[in-house]
Amino acid sequence: MSNNKIAKTAQLKDNVTIGDNVIIEDDCFIDYGVIIRDNVHIKKGSFIGARCILGEYLMNFYSDRINKIHPLIIGENALIRSETIIYGNTTIGNNFQTGHRVTIRESSLIGNNVRIGTSSDVQEECIIGNYVSLHSNVFVGEKSVIKNFVWIFPHVILTNDPTPPSQNIIGSTIEDYAVVSAGSIILPGVNIGEESLIGAGSIVTKDVEKETVVAGNPAKKICLTKDIKNKLTGQEVYPWKYNFSRGMPWANLGYEQWLKNEKLK
Amino acid sequence: MSNNKIAKTAQLKDNVTIGDNVIIEDDCFIDYGVIIRDNVHIKKGSFIGARCILGEYLMNFYSDRINKIHPLIIGENALIRSETIIYGNTTIGNNFQTGHRVTIRESSLIGNNVRIGTSSDVQEECIIGNYVSLHSNVFVGEKSVIKNFVWIFPHVILTNDPTPPSQNIIGSTIEDYAVVSAGSIILPGVNIGEESLIGAGSIVTKDVEKETVVAGNPAKKICLTKDIKNKLTGQEVYPWKYNFSRGMPWANLGYEQWLKNEKLK
Amino acid sequence: MSNNKIAKTAQLKDNVTIGDNVIIEDDCFIDYGVIIRDNVHIKKGSFIGARCILGEYLMNFYSDRINKIHPLIIGENALIRSETIIYGNTTIGNNFQTGHRVTIRESSLIGNNVRIGTSSDVQEECIIGNYVSLHSNVFVGEKSVIKNFVWIFPHVILTNDPTPPSQNIIGSTIEDYAVVSAGSIILPGVNIGEESLIGAGSIVTKDVEKETVVAGNPAKKICLTKDIKNKLTGQEVYPWKYNFSRGMPWANLGYEQWLKNEKLK
Repeated sequence: MSNNKIAKTAQLKDNVTIGDNVIIEDDCFIDYGVIIRDNVHIKKGSFIGARCILGEYLMNFYSDRINKIHPLIIGENALIRSETIIYGNTTIGNNFQTGHRVTIRESSLIGNNVRIGTSSDVQEECIIGNYVSLHSNVFVGEKSVIKNFVWIFPHVILTNDPTPPSQNIIGSTIEDYAVVSAGSIILPGVNIGEESLIGAGSIVTKDVEKETVVAGNPAKKICLTKDIKNKLTGQEVYPWKYNFSRGMPWANLGYEQWLKNEKLK
Repeated sequence: MSNNKIAKTAQLKDNVTIGDNVIIEDDCFIDYGVIIRDNVHIKKGSFIGARCILGEYLMNFYSDRINKIHPLIIGENALIRSETIIYGNTTIGNNFQTGHRVTIRESSLIGNNVRIGTSSDVQEECIIGNYVSLHSNVFVGEKSVIKNFVWIFPHVILTNDPTPPSQNIIGSTIEDYAVVSAGSIILPGVNIGEESLIGAGSIVTKDVEKETVVAGNPAKKICLTKDIKNKLTGQEVYPWKYNFSRGMPWANLGYEQWLKNEKLK
Repeated sequence: MSNNKIAKTAQLKDNVTIGDNVIIEDDCFIDYGVIIRDNVHIKKGSFIGARCILGEYLMNFYSDRINKIHPLIIGENALIRSETIIYGNTTIGNNFQTGHRVTIRESSLIGNNVRIGTSSDVQEECIIGNYVSLHSNVFVGEKSVIKNFVWIFPHVILTNDPTPPSQNIIGSTIEDYAVVSAGSIILPGVNIGEESLIGAGSIVTKDVEKETVVAGNPAKKICLTKDIKNKLTGQEVYPWKYNFSRGMPWANLGYEQWLKNEKLK
C-alpha cells in the first residue's frame, strides 16, 4: 500500500529501503543501503550517502512498534554523507551538507546553507538559522538556538540543564556571526553575542557581549575582536565577514556590496 | 550446523545475519541489516536497531579468524538504537537503552535500567550499576566503576592510566547518585563521592567528597550541593533524588516512600 | 568493465560492493557489507570489518557524480574495524589498526604500525609517522603532523586555524615520543616537543619544550618528565620508552638494544 513518488531521474543504488509516503524529487542520488522510513520528502538534486537513515523512529514508535506521522523535509541540493541519521518531524532548508554519521533528532528547524560535520549530534527542538557551519563532533543540546552565519568548531558542547538532572531545560543562544572555537562548552541559557569569539577550550558560564573575545575556565573577557591582528600581516581579522567569504552569499561581491543588495530586495 | 533458537513471535527484517548458538526470545524486533555473531542471547521484548553488531569479535579472533566463545547476554525490553556495537563476554540487565552508534567493549557487567547515549564508548572490564544514565559521547575507560543512579553528561571522559603509556591501569569510581556535568575529565583512580556534583568542563585530579560541588581546571571545591538553589524558585535542588523522578523507580511514589518499600523487601 | 584483481585466497562475505581497479591481495578478509570504491589496493593479510567504506568519494565527486582517480593504498596485515571510512588519495603503511567508525579524509600519509581508535577523525593532508597510537575520538585537524612513537589519548583535538574562520590553516606538530593526555586541545601551529607530556584537559597555546610536562587552561609548565615518579613504586616513569614496550619494535629487546640494532642497519 505504498504511496511513494520517486522521480524517474532519481538514481537509487542497491539495497535501498523505502517506506510509505516518500517523495524523492528529480536528480536525487540515493546511495547503497539507505533506509528511508515513512513521510520523508527529499527535494531535487540531493545526494544521500550510503546507509543513511532518514525519518528515523521517534520514541513513540517503541511502545507499539507503529510508526506515527512525523514528516521529514530535506531541501534541494543536499549533500548528506554516509551513515547520517535524521529523525522525523524536522524541516531542513536547501544546500544542506553533512559529514559522516551525523545525528539530527526530531522537531528541529534548520535553515539554508547549513553544514554539520562528521559525528555531530543535534538534539531535539533546536533552531538553526542560515549559513551556519558546525564542524566535527559538535553536541547541540535540546532547545539550543543558533542564529545565522555562526561558526562552531570541533567538539563544542551546547548544554541546557542548569541543575542536572532536571526537566528545567534552557538552551543556549548563539547570535549572528559568532565564532565558537574547538572544545568550548556553553553553559545552559547563556547568550553568545553577535560577532563574538570564544577561545578554544573555554567554559562559558555567563553571557558574552557582542564583538568580545573570551577564553579560559571559567571564560573571562580577553579583549575585543577588533584588537586581534593576523600575526603574519598585522592586519585586523574581525569582523570576519570582511575577510572570509568561501561558501558565504557574498563570495563574489564582498560583504558590503552583498548587504546593499540585500537591503534593496 | 546452526544451533539457534529464534522465537516465532520475534520479527526479523531483511538482511539480518545470524551466527551460531543465538537465542532470540519472544517479541523481539531485529531491524534491517543487524549482524548477530555467535553465542548471543537477546531476551524478550527487545528492539535491536538497524545495522547493530552484537557479539562483536574480540581481539583473539584476528589471529586465526576463528571466533572463540564469548557470550553476550542482553536483558528483557532492551531498546538498542541503530549501528550500536556490543562485544562478547558481556552481560547487560533489563530495560537497557542506547542511542545510535554506541560501542561497548568486552568483559563488562551492566545492570538494569541503564541508558547509554549516542556515540558513547564503554571500554573493556567496566562495571556499571542500575539506573545509570550516560548521555552522548561519553568515554568510559577500561576498568571504570560506575555505581547506581549516576548521571554522566555529554563528552565526559573517565581516564585510567596515571603514567601514560603504561599497563598500570586504575579506573575511576563514580559513587551512587553522583552527577558529572558535560565535558568533565576524571583522572585515573579518582573517587567521585556519593551525591556529589562535578561542574561542566572540570578536570578532576583528586577524590571528591560526598555531597560536594567541584569545578575548574584543576577542579576545586565550590560549595556543598545543598547550597545550590534553583535560580527561578529559590528552592534547594539537591539531593536531586527528591526533585527528579523521570525514569527512576520512585517515579510514582517519591523517593522516601520508595526507599521505605525497598527496605521492607 | 571491471578491472579488479581479487586474490583467490581472499575471503569476501555477503553484500560486499567493489568498484573498478581494485586489488585485494592474498589472505584478506572482507566482512559483510563493505563498500570498496574505485582504485583501492588492499595488501595481503588485511581484515576489513563489516560495512567499512574504502576509497570514499572526495568533494569533486558531488558536482558531476563521476568518481575521479584518487587511489587508496592500505598496507599488509591491516585490522580495520567495522564502519570505518577511508577516503581516496591516501597511503597507509603496514600493520594499520583502527577501532570502529574511524574517519580518515583524503591526501594523508600514514606510516607503519599506526593505531587509530574508535570514532577518531583524521582530516585531510595530515602526516602521521610510525608506531603512532591515537585512542578513541581524537580529532586531527587538516595539515597536522604527528611524528613517530607518539601517544594521543581520547578526545584530544589538534586545531589549525589561528583566526577562525579563515583559509590560513597552520597544523600543529607533535614530535617523537610525545604523549598528549585525554581531552587536551593543541592550538594552531603549536609544536609539542620530543618526549614531552601534556596533562589531561590542557589547552596548549604555545610550544612545549622537549621532556617537559605542561597542564592547565592555558597550559603551563609543571615540571620535567624525569621528575615524575610512579606513586606506588617511587621509580621514574619517563622517558616511557624504557618502561613500556607493548606493541613497540623493542618489545623483545628493550629500547637500548633495539636502538643499537637500528643504528647498525
